[in-house]
Parts: sequence; structure tokens; C-alpha cells
Amino acid sequence: MRLYGTMEIGTNGHLFIGGCDTVELAKKWGTPLYVMDEAEIRRRARAYRQVLAENYPDSHVIYAGKTFMTMAMCRLMEDEGLGLDLVSGGELYTAISAGFPLDSVYFHGNNKSPQELELALEQGVGRIVVDNFHELELLEELAAGRKQKVKIFLRVTPGVEAHTHTYIQTGQVDSKFGFGLQNGMAQQAVARACQLKHIELVGLHCHIGSQIIALDSFDVTVEIMVDFIAKLKAELGWECTELSLGGGLGIRYTAEDPEVSIENFGRRLADKLKGEIKKHALASPKLIVEPGRSIAGEAGTTLYTIGSSKVIPGVRKYVAVDGGMGDNPRVALYQAEYQALLANRANEEADDLVSIAGKCCESGDMLIWDLKIPEANTGDILAVFCTGAYNYSMASNYNRLPRPAVVLVADGKADLIVKRESYEDLVRLDEIPQRLAKGKMKIAL
Amino acid sequence: MRLYGTMEIGTNGHLFIGGCDTVELAKKWGTPLYVMDEAEIRRRARAYRQVLAENYPDSHVIYAGKTFMTMAMCRLMEDEGLGLDLVSGGELYTAISAGFPLDSVYFHGNNKSPQELELALEQGVGRIVVDNFHELELLEELAAGRKQKVKIFLRVTPGVEAHTHTYIQTGQVDSKFGFGLQNGMAQQAVARACQLKHIELVGLHCHIGSQIIALDSFDVTVEIMVDFIAKLKAELGWECTELSLGGGLGIRYTAEDPEVSIENFGRRLADKLKGEIKKHALASPKLIVEPGRSIAGEAGTTLYTIGSSKVIPGVRKYVAVDGGMGDNPRVALYQAEYQALLANRANEEADDLVSIAGKCCESGDMLIWDLKIPEANTGDILAVFCTGAYNYSMASNYNRLPRPAVVLVADGKADLIVKRESYEDLVRLDEIPQRLAKGKMKIAL
Repeated sequence: MRLYGTMEIGTNGHLFIGGCDTVELAKKWGTPLYVMDEAEIRRRARAYRQVLAENYPDSHVIYAGKTFMTMAMCRLMEDEGLGLDLVSGGELYTAISAGFPLDSVYFHGNNKSPQELELALEQGVGRIVVDNFHELELLEELAAGRKQKVKIFLRVTPGVEAHTHTYIQTGQVDSKFGFGLQNGMAQQAVARACQLKHIELVGLHCHIGSQIIALDSFDVTVEIMVDFIAKLKAELGWECTELSLGGGLGIRYTAEDPEVSIENFGRRLADKLKGEIKKHALASPKLIVEPGRSIAGEAGTTLYTIGSSKVIPGVRKYVAVDGGMGDNPRVALYQAEYQALLANRANEEADDLVSIAGKCCESGDMLIWDLKIPEANTGDILAVFCTGAYNYSMASNYNRLPRPAVVLVADGKADLIVKRESYEDLVRLDEIPQRLAKGKMKIAL
Repeated sequence: MRLYGTMEIGTNGHLFIGGCDTVELAKKWGTPLYVMDEAEIRRRARAYRQVLAENYPDSHVIYAGKTFMTMAMCRLMEDEGLGLDLVSGGELYTAISAGFPLDSVYFHGNNKSPQELELALEQGVGRIVVDNFHELELLEELAAGRKQKVKIFLRVTPGVEAHTHTYIQTGQVDSKFGFGLQNGMAQQAVARACQLKHIELVGLHCHIGSQIIALDSFDVTVEIMVDFIAKLKAELGWECTELSLGGGLGIRYTAEDPEVSIENFGRRLADKLKGEIKKHALASPKLIVEPGRSIAGEAGTTLYTIGSSKVIPGVRKYVAVDGGMGDNPRVALYQAEYQALLANRANEEADDLVSIAGKCCESGDMLIWDLKIPEANTGDILAVFCTGAYNYSMASNYNRLPRPAVVLVADGKADLIVKRESYEDLVRLDEIPQRLAKGKMKIAL
């Protein structure tokens, strides 16, 4: 079994993360529990910064908050010198609450509301990544109203769709995001942005996919984007001084997923960009990369307590845990695969083939099909790996299950960074209208 | 365009629900907004009660809370004389908070925790639907500890899998739920339950699927279950006095979905059950049915405000709204299809073919592909139909979008039944550990 980050198996047979015994964590904070490995988060954030510092010093690494966004995570990212890629007023509000320097925030989204844009302008967000013509005109109007000049990027859809192991290049772009490059919309948008008095177009952004293993997808993207930048300079006289190539680097959910080295990615991206810039005799733009999953994903582990189990003769053995699609919707959403072990018996032979069921009243609520673990008993702790990204951030209260707590572990210490929801929290926003109060008459139809 | 429940188009061209102008609702409460049609909820709840009262008086209709569960909904169900099918401590807590009579609650779930079972025992929940042997023994132990005798059902997996338009019958049951009938587990469970001193086995439960249109799936289920009940009587001497046949009746998400009449369903189910009971010369059990989606689903409408839109020449037109997979994950989860109209221009010709994008930063966040509406402008209100079930209950804060408010409309009045989440709510549970406070040193790796 592959371990991640600071994980180790203690002499007591327990899984440790950040020097903390996960069985003790489960006892102290309850389950389900998200455990975030601080050293691993920091190591990955630093790996991005360092490889770029060495190979492309004029660069900025910004963390994609949608993967895992809490106030403590904002503090960690600030501490590591990363910026933030944020996508909503709620994410902005979280960064503001954490005292994050807003000039290091890049504000994304295909449908930012006027209120969200006003908040961004008022707070001096670093860059607004404009997605479409509607937003471009709206932002000009809002900035004019505030007598402000706002620095923006335009989101370009370069016609590269990266999948995990391959990519496809397509002239016809069908995406809700950005301005198509091949169909001329992107160039029109650049021309329009240059005309606007309260807009300063400083750069371009693109994002080609997620959970990408094949680095050649980025090579072709760099070629397309730099070609385009050269064309814009020649035809419109506009110079691109900042270039965001998005995020999307894959992580190792299962044993089949290869490790994608951040160092290799960074070096290759920097080299490719330098080469293309040189080929076109352009000035080097500042390079922005936007990792999310590849910083938070492998650093997260979910601890569950095993409850019921059920052998269906000749079919399979189900083992049920105290969470499920509420805290990890990725299995139901994307048929995502996960690895796991028994945290309290991590040194025992994993010779029982089971399928891990969630506790939601829905047959689709399965976490892992066909996992090998030691024969499990009620009360055992199951640790599911690689749940740091898109688990807490996508969690729901389906079946009115309270969302789990999140603890940050490092150097043998564990700190709560998100409190567990209580039953009281679940009804906190519920109201009973006066006319439905107990004792009132039925309403006729 | 098919309208649902009390919907009508006003002379001002606006969509009205429950006598309320939806454009005014959007203005007053903001968007996204869930609007629940009280008369439609009550009409459907009554339709179930009435058809059974006429055709099978010894019956109980219990509403499946997982579809849409709030304190106000509990009050409505109590007012209509329905019980509740609940699946977690959080749902129980909601019913308790609403003062719902707990003896009309049936407690389901494949992995109830000891704490949840204790809560159910302490509160005198009507029936506990035991899913597996682990739970059976655990419940006996807990009831013994409390010197209580507890009335239970056993969940049986009858080997019928109903899909929307068809069903399949299988001897090999592969489900995380229940005791298999064909493999002998169900009979073993009945035998075991009869031995337990603090358990009173009063009935059986089964559930064959959801969004069912083909009523013959229920016919075959009744045959199998009554055969089994006769066998149990003959072989174990146990009499089934209560029989829950679950829920699952389909609703009309799109124009292609036929109406499944609650009256036809109820009459056919009652007749079939009476026939089978007579055939085996058994005493009639009390009949329990558990509708959820078919009570709440069509009664719910989501109002969105249209923001950006984007024409990709030769490909499609995207129109983006201010919600998405956060408030309606069913499209991403199940490729669910929805119908919609422009609530503020409902009388105009729907001649523009568009695709409705959500505002989440995820290309999968699409609500409707290829919908015809009048040419939409920013600020128009889009009403998406049939969002009463599994929308609010499955909603998340993905992208840190606050969850929408819910209003209940009837007779021209609108009452808030769930308050809108605020930005403050989003960070309410976030903590920054002292060692990460502003001004602290970086932590070495």
C-alpha cells in the first residue's frame, strides 16, 4: 500500500499522519474526520515555487481555492508565498476573513455577479479574469462608476482538451468558459478590452483540464498561446505581460496513477515557454500557474468508523462506514477510485476483499469497490486517502448528515481548522411559518 | 410548455406559483430561490392517503424525508396525516425540532450508528427498519440496556430492480441494503428476530428503485413479498402484520416523462396486494407506502437570475445563471434533464435554442442542454421545474456559494421556510490555529 506525505505506520500498527496517531485523532475529534497533512501541503506549495524560482523567476504560483478553501488554508498559502485563484464572493469573503492580501488574488468565474465584481473592486483584488463580453462591459461600467482602473486577464479557450493520459486538439470549442481562440472571439475581446478606459488588459489565462498526467498537453498549449500572443502583438500592438497557464496537474488516487513530479512539470513548462517566447522574439511575460488538487489532494485523508457489514454469499462483502457521498461526492459524480487501509490495524495482512458502502440511503452511495483490507470489525477505523481536494469543498448535508470536522496535523500536533457541524446547525436556518404552527387548522385545497 | 401544480401565466406574462408572482418572489428573496408549492404538496399527499383509504383502509403513507426535509415540511406532513420515513439522526432531530409525533416515524438506513439508534429508542420512534444482522444484534443489546421492547421491520431485498420504464428480476442480489430473499438471508433474519427478547418483529420492508414509471414492477414485487410472507408463516409460524412496499413513483421531469397517476398506482397496488393475500389465505397486513420524490418533486421550482451569455458561432449559445451544481447536483450526478421557462416573459415565444450553464468553476456544471426560451437578457428570471426533490437536500457549498433560501407559496402568500445562507455562515465553523495566526513564523519542513 502506497503511503502519502508524512504518513507512517507506528509500532502499534496505527497509521500516523504528521506525527499524530490517526486512531487517537478519531477518538478525540470523532468520525468522519478530514485530516490535512500540513507538511505535505507546504512541501507541494514550495515545490511549485522553487522549481519556478529556479527556471522562470518572474512567476506567481496561485492556489485554486475551489479544491479546499478554509480560513486556515488561506493562512498556509500566504505563509508559503502563494496567491489565490478564487471563483466566488464566498471564496473572496473567506480570504478577506483570513486577512489574506487581496492583491495576490485572481478572481475567476464564468458568471460573476455585479455584487461579486463590486466586492472584488472594493477590496482591490489583484486580477480579474474576465470570461466573456458581458463581463467585460459590466466590469468597465462598474470600474467607471468607481473611477477605478482595473487590471484584468482574459480567459482564452485554446482548443486543447487535456484528459488524464491524453489530450485532444479541436478547432471547434464547445465550453461555457472563455473566449474561443480559433473562432476569433479571443482576438475580438483583446481588441475590445484595449478600447475600454477603466480596463487594463495585462494578460491572458487558459485552463485545459484537470487530473492531467500527460505533460505534452501543456507543451501544445504553450505553443498555441504564445503563437496567439505574437499574433496579437503584430496585429493589435497589444503586449501580453502576464500569462496564466491554469492548473490541472494530476495526483495519485490509486496505485495505477503514476506520480507526476511538480519539478518535472515546472521545468518543462518553463523551458517550453522560454523556447516559444524566444522563437517569436517576444518579451517574457510573467508566468502564473494555478495548482489546486495537486497541493491539497494527496495531503487529505478521511477517517471513518466501520459499522455494519454484510456478506452476500457468492456476490460480495459490504462494509459500511459512517460517512459517504455527503463528505465525498466524487465517487458518485465521477466514478472516482480511492485507496484505503484500516488505520488501527495497518500492519496486518490485507487479505479480505470488501466493498466500502456509505451510510446514505441511496444505492449509489458506495465509496470503494473491491478493496483489500484485514477482516474488519465494527469500530475499526478506515482511512481513505487522497481526499484533500473536492471532498470537503463539495460536501453536502444529504440525508441531513452533519459535515465532518477538519484537523490540520503537523509535528505531532493536531489543530481543528473546521468545526464539526452539529444537529443544531442543520435546523439553524429552518423556519416554521406562523400559519403552520402546531394547533393551526388544515388549509383547504 | 407543461406547467405544474398551481402554476399559471399571469396577464403580465409572469409565471405565478401558489398565486404569487415569481418575479416578485425573486425580487423580494433574491435568487437562486427554491419555491415550494404548498397546495401541490398537500394535493399529492392527500391523493396517496385517499386512494388507500378507499382501497386499502389499513394503511399508512409515510413521506421520505431524504427528498426534501425541513421543519416546515414536517409540519405539512403532520397536518396531512402522513408519517415520516427518516434515515439519520439529523433527520430525526429535524422532526423532533418540528414537534412531529415520533410514533409515526419509520427509521431506515444501512448503517445506523449506536447513537442514532439510542436517539430513536429514547424518542419512541414508531418502527425501526433493520437492515442487517449487525444492526439486529446491536438493537437487541441497546433495547435490553434500556429495558425496552422495540418494534421493527426487516428490510428485504426481493430481487426486483425497477428502472424507469422496466424492471429486472434477479436471483443474485448485489445491494448494500437489506437481507436477500432468494439467498435465504431474509428468512434467517426473521428467525433470528423472533428469538430476540427486546425485539418485536412486526413487518417487512422492501424498496425496488426510484423514478419508476412502469407499475408492473410493483405487481411482481407484491407477488414475491406475499409468497415470502406465506412461506414464513408456514415454516416459522411468524405472521407479517405490517408490510412496507417502499416508494419510488416517478415524476415528470421532461415532456417525455408520462404522468404516473397516484390514484392508479394506489388502486393497482391495493388490488394486487388484496389478491395475493387472498390467494395465500393470509390475514391482511397493514400497508405502508413511502413516497418522497412524488410528493415534493414537481412541487418545487428553482428561480435563477440570468447573468452572462455567450454565442459560440456554429456550436451553441450558453446562458449562465447564478446557481448550478451547488443547488442542483442531479444533472452532474445522474445526467438528469429539466424543463424551464423565462418567468418574467413566460408568454413570449420560446424560439431561441440555448444551454443553461451554472456558475461553478467546473465545465460539468451545466443545468440544461438545448432548451428553447425567448431570447434571454441579463436580469431575466429563469424558472427550472421539478426541483422539489433531491435539490435542496443534496445542495452543497461548492465554490463557497451560499445555499439558496426556500419559500413556501400558497394562496398568494409566500413564507420563508429556509433562510438563505450568508457569507458569514460559510466561515462560521472555520478556525485559524494560534500557531498560524498573522505574524507567526513559517514552519520549517
